[in-house]
Amino acid sequence: MNNKKESSKTPIRELGKYQLTDRLSARFISSNEATLQGPGDDASVACFREPLTVSGQKLSLEGVDFDLSYFPLKFIGYKTVIHAMGQVMAMNAVPLQLLVCAGVSQRFFIEDLDELFLGIDAAARIYGADVTAIDIQSSYTGLSLAVTALGEGDAGMLTRRSGAHDNDLICLSGNVGAAYMGLKLLEREKRVFTGDSGRDQLPDLKGYEYILERYLKPELPKKLLENLKKDDLIPTSMCLLTNGLAHGVLSIAKASRTGARIFVDKIPIARECFDFAQTDKDLSPLVAALNGGDDYEMLFTIPLESYEILSKEYSIDIIGHICDASHGCMMITPDGKALKLESPGF
Amino acid sequence: MNNKKESSKTPIRELGKYQLTDRLSARFISSNEATLQGPGDDASVACFREPLTVSGQKLSLEGVDFDLSYFPLKFIGYKTVIHAMGQVMAMNAVPLQLLVCAGVSQRFFIEDLDELFLGIDAAARIYGADVTAIDIQSSYTGLSLAVTALGEGDAGMLTRRSGAHDNDLICLSGNVGAAYMGLKLLEREKRVFTGDSGRDQLPDLKGYEYILERYLKPELPKKLLENLKKDDLIPTSMCLLTNGLAHGVLSIAKASRTGARIFVDKIPIARECFDFAQTDKDLSPLVAALNGGDDYEMLFTIPLESYEILSKEYSIDIIGHICDASHGCMMITPDGKALKLESPGF
Repeated sequence: MNNKKESSKTPIRELGKYQLTDRLSARFISSNEATLQGPGDDASVACFREPLTVSGQKLSLEGVDFDLSYFPLKFIGYKTVIHAMGQVMAMNAVPLQLLVCAGVSQRFFIEDLDELFLGIDAAARIYGADVTAIDIQSSYTGLSLAVTALGEGDAGMLTRRSGAHDNDLICLSGNVGAAYMGLKLLEREKRVFTGDSGRDQLPDLKGYEYILERYLKPELPKKLLENLKKDDLIPTSMCLLTNGLAHGVLSIAKASRTGARIFVDKIPIARECFDFAQTDKDLSPLVAALNGGDDYEMLFTIPLESYEILSKEYSIDIIGHICDASHGCMMITPDGKALKLESPGF
Repeated sequence: MNNKKESSKTPIRELGKYQLTDRLSARFISSNEATLQGPGDDASVACFREPLTVSGQKLSLEGVDFDLSYFPLKFIGYKTVIHAMGQVMAMNAVPLQLLVCAGVSQRFFIEDLDELFLGIDAAARIYGADVTAIDIQSSYTGLSLAVTALGEGDAGMLTRRSGAHDNDLICLSGNVGAAYMGLKLLEREKRVFTGDSGRDQLPDLKGYEYILERYLKPELPKKLLENLKKDDLIPTSMCLLTNGLAHGVLSIAKASRTGARIFVDKIPIARECFDFAQTDKDLSPLVAALNGGDDYEMLFTIPLESYEILSKEYSIDIIGHICDASHGCMMITPDGKALKLESPGF
């Protein structure tokens, strides 16, 4: 699980559930004024200044959300917290508390849990949330981690998916597709790790730091959302991108009962995606952006009147606009063709 | 998973994640005024009337929290919701929203998920909470279910574990130990089910309905907590009993920096526990009550002045009192011996 030799690690049974919880809780000192009760009681308690309580939850499961052979425990904790907080931020609310439940099997050591909670702590600190509940239990199968994020919101600022209107601009907080490329790289190099490739070599991750970090340790556009609030720019709709850009656009259009047009040459895709795609003919940067997932960028719509300030003072990408539902959700290619936007399972 | 033949059930892949979520969400219509956003957006939103947001979370894992060979899916949903809501109620707050994440493997059918969510819905309705988020994902291992309960609380009514004082009465909302006996019965009859007993017979559950229900479908003392509030009786501390009475008493005493004395002959144990214990010489009703767990009763302390109204107008059990920390946590036997109260792993 980490590089320390397993023989020098401490089995979980040496501490037991309650002492283990105490040990892990000791790291977390609440710093938000809103937090009235942190770990150690039946429930956590907050007194928010804003009238709305906004909450999101993410359950991360071994083998589905992460592969322990290449996903460091620290980053599993970090990314699960990012996911839960991202849901709250996608409503234009501010995450302030985190509840954590972990199911852990006997093959884990106390030092492994320390790693997991190091990542949880890091994400909580960077984004200003308190960890207010910790529950550790046994698991007979894989590692599972449930994180709930709670935050406060202002009713006038709330950004549901359903608020987009005709002619609103469709904006992206950052580039998309890189996380998917990172996942593909790790899957390929995993075969080298486990010897399935038949080649006698070490995993080759050098030069790919950017796409790896986008997959393993995603960040949220907190500063951007704060700046939009300061400038009184309230998105009409917003959605956290976890299942690809196409899914995000389709979600907003469906909830808002509108259509959408996005332009392929406006979709921000990092140079690193193109570089990596050149190593494998089956990889397409555009497909990664549209259907890859795990981007943790915000997709939002904002009235056309804001075009000037957005394009002058914000480093966001305006990739298209909302239109009438009768036009459907289309993607316009550089040569002007309109293709139907699709997302698997939508 | 249920009695319907598997051949007539629908594989989950026939619907896919999003349509499955839509199908399961359709059951849940929010009924609380506090709920502003239910399933279908990035996060759920509440506007509570009371100033405090109180939240608890429970992760239920196959093989640890439930054994699918005898635990009906409906009751897994029900019990997990009860656990999460019970944490909120143990702070003297009112649970109003539930967030649900389920990890499900391909061996489940859509009808199985319907059963699971039928139980979630039943518990939500009975206790007056809205299910405001549903997320279904794949699992490569067992079934996992994460439920978060959110509620509102009044700062003056909050019951932490740390508020008990010298001479406070120690009270129980109901009898304890029966759920543990129900578990033991199911484990014994499971060997009959799976043929490990070597006997040619059917599981024998008749006459044991009470202890089975206490284990499979626990309830929370909602009415009692409402009545205490109406009578302005605010417990000085409260704790949801999930790990046995001894653990509850030790938790409150530790958090409050006090000692405690409880009297063995005052501990309420149902007749059905004694009946079942007679079938197995290894079972002790007192041990089941002290260390069994899964009771979902409230353990609370209340000032001595309330003795008269509590004993006259409430059907609760007063099992002892808080004392100075120097006296420790003791259990007094009917013949007057004082034994140290212990809980495994505490």
